[in-house]
Amino acid sequence: MVPHLVTALNGPINELEQRILESTPVIERWFRLEWMEHTPPFYSSVDVRNAGFKLAPVDTCLFPGGWNNLSPEMLPLAVQAAMAAIEKICPEAKNLLLVPSAQTHNTFYLSNLSRLAQIFNLAGLNVRLGSLSADLKEPVQLEVPGGAPLTLEPLQRGKRRLGLKHFDPCTILLNNDLSAGVPGILEDLHEQYLLPPLHAGWPTRRHSTHFRLYEELAKRFAKVLGMDHWLINPACAPCGELDLTTPAGLAALQAQVDVVLTKTRRKYKEYGINEKAFAVIKRDDGRADVGPWVVRDAKDVPALVAAAQLAGQATGAAARQPLQGPFFVQEGVLNNERINDAVAEPVVYMMDRYVVGGFYRVHADQADHQGMNGPGASFLPLAFDQSNHLPQLGARPGASGPNRFYMYGVIARLGMLAASYELEATDPDAEIYD
Amino acid sequence: MVPHLVTALNGPINELEQRILESTPVIERWFRLEWMEHTPPFYSSVDVRNAGFKLAPVDTCLFPGGWNNLSPEMLPLAVQAAMAAIEKICPEAKNLLLVPSAQTHNTFYLSNLSRLAQIFNLAGLNVRLGSLSADLKEPVQLEVPGGAPLTLEPLQRGKRRLGLKHFDPCTILLNNDLSAGVPGILEDLHEQYLLPPLHAGWPTRRHSTHFRLYEELAKRFAKVLGMDHWLINPACAPCGELDLTTPAGLAALQAQVDVVLTKTRRKYKEYGINEKAFAVIKRDDGRADVGPWVVRDAKDVPALVAAAQLAGQATGAAARQPLQGPFFVQEGVLNNERINDAVAEPVVYMMDRYVVGGFYRVHADQADHQGMNGPGASFLPLAFDQSNHLPQLGARPGASGPNRFYMYGVIARLGMLAASYELEATDPDAEIYD
Repeated sequence: MVPHLVTALNGPINELEQRILESTPVIERWFRLEWMEHTPPFYSSVDVRNAGFKLAPVDTCLFPGGWNNLSPEMLPLAVQAAMAAIEKICPEAKNLLLVPSAQTHNTFYLSNLSRLAQIFNLAGLNVRLGSLSADLKEPVQLEVPGGAPLTLEPLQRGKRRLGLKHFDPCTILLNNDLSAGVPGILEDLHEQYLLPPLHAGWPTRRHSTHFRLYEELAKRFAKVLGMDHWLINPACAPCGELDLTTPAGLAALQAQVDVVLTKTRRKYKEYGINEKAFAVIKRDDGRADVGPWVVRDAKDVPALVAAAQLAGQATGAAARQPLQGPFFVQEGVLNNERINDAVAEPVVYMMDRYVVGGFYRVHADQADHQGMNGPGASFLPLAFDQSNHLPQLGARPGASGPNRFYMYGVIARLGMLAASYELEATDPDAEIYD
Repeated sequence: MVPHLVTALNGPINELEQRILESTPVIERWFRLEWMEHTPPFYSSVDVRNAGFKLAPVDTCLFPGGWNNLSPEMLPLAVQAAMAAIEKICPEAKNLLLVPSAQTHNTFYLSNLSRLAQIFNLAGLNVRLGSLSADLKEPVQLEVPGGAPLTLEPLQRGKRRLGLKHFDPCTILLNNDLSAGVPGILEDLHEQYLLPPLHAGWPTRRHSTHFRLYEELAKRFAKVLGMDHWLINPACAPCGELDLTTPAGLAALQAQVDVVLTKTRRKYKEYGINEKAFAVIKRDDGRADVGPWVVRDAKDVPALVAAAQLAGQATGAAARQPLQGPFFVQEGVLNNERINDAVAEPVVYMMDRYVVGGFYRVHADQADHQGMNGPGASFLPLAFDQSNHLPQLGARPGASGPNRFYMYGVIARLGMLAASYELEATDPDAEIYD
């Protein structure tokens, strides 16, 4: 099940792997102490990029789908972690209401919901699914390939509680990143546990906040391991609110692209890396209707924006003004993992503080610098082998699948920890408890 | 890896399996609520007997060896559970001192120690081994078959702390059931976490206390599931202190054997079970130098005792007066699990509240009612398949390996929960916190 990966087997990444393996007890204790002070997200997935010379998280998802892509052997770990999570947050929980995203026409997504329902059922909860769609008036049965059908029911909102007909949950699990905005039906639920909280959704999140906090953690973590934090930390430049339809907006974006490219080129030179540096521009607020744009030179920015403007006019998306708003520039991290000739992007899944599995997004058609999780991206999931969960001490650096996955799990947990800091920083109720 | 088991596939056990599977969320929540009030033992293993018509724990070990018998696929679960356990008890822990039993000449036991050290190392602790043997003056290297050698070091006791040369642990993990008595070197360690506590050792434990508490739990649990608690609960009769070298002592023991046999026969009749009831007599304090004796009729007791007396005189064991002390009589539970013609006794391993694996003790030579864990018992371990951790809802009762193991895990956790109550009841410091 584990793909044979053709990666750069020389250079700093092997030193990183070696250092991470040698430091296993130190690393695990470091995380343990962090979790004494901070609460992990209920569940998360982190996209990791392995350039061969550096390793970095590029996206931390707080409403992960794709649980069906994990191998069945990983299920016991997910169930055990779910038990631990529920026990801490709401030990008396009996009924769990799972609120999916709008993708319920997608059979892969339905398999994901089945898997999630199974995990929480085995962890000791009665699980039912409630739809945010106002169009759903009666329960519907949704066929799941190779499994029992799922029943999706209309939500019922009372003054203080959300539920279904004859189903009053103590816990509501969102599997919906709220990128379409926070539905009123989910607001002011103070009697029930809403997991993750609403401020984990994209209406509140900003890539810039996440990666600023990630950078702080990466610096501290790199210090513990005695290494350069750049090896695990992509250079970033937040742009704030920009209007890319104006020359001033374009110039501001170009300046930030330049900052990132200059930093990256300097590091490439320092490490003797013979690659062309690139930057990725995206909306800071997670909006996916514009970008991400890959740029190797700041002077290419106006052409990309112009093209987007044209495309937007053609599709009418301009009405949502995707070119006006917060933007974010990040160092592009090459993905040098290959299965035969196909790019393989590792994704690590976590429940509470525990790494419970992962898989490779394998896509033969895409170049190594492109986002693989964009709209319409199709991929073949290749589950990590379950024995990959634990490092093999003593194996040659770069040669051991389990060791590589352990390293991915460490970096993914750093990303998750950054999300934990982020949720604290953006918690609208934080001052109440201070 | 999972043996094909020839068991009685009809009768109440299938109804029990069915009921347990249907009640998964209820059962998991029931345990979750119990763990809100009670602390699980740090680690434990429970021997389970499946008679085909009833299922019961027969021994709960609080210092389990044999971790090497679990399949490597179970290691991630054990590590994750160890992380959860450490995080709750001593999150700041850095160094763990593992104190083995005296069996360090046994290579199987050394493999067990290796596995334990590996689990806690991967959970984020520096692990070293300290010997209780006063003869050990210098560190020794012990060869472990198929693995790196272990170093066993002499313990160093300060006024308030126990450690090794240049190694000051915050946590001490005993893998020694203290059946030889509590060594003074382990007493009055109030600055370090001693896991499990000294009163988990046999100098304090009594089978009768454990099974009295188990019975209470089995009754409550059976009520939740709407079934007869006898199906998971072996009838017991504590005898208190007896002198079996006197007629009065013998008569008292016979009376208790009669109580157990009468109860068991009545139940066999009620369920139409065509087997001969039997009882097991053992020392209540875990001493293994006498018994266990299997009896089908109370009148056979004097002959068994006389034979033991003769054997004791021959070996000189009489000096330790094994026939004077606390005794315990328990309903014998048939083991009807077979791999081909060999008896297969399931053992379930737990770390903190989590079932992390198990194996079958397979022994071709022993009859179905004999203890398989006695002195000198040799067995072939057959690890449960890791996919056995999660029930397969919908499979035909009695036909699914995973479902059977899930049921074993439930009953084993009931045994572990009884041990948790037991440790509370026998805690010498309990009144301090009351």
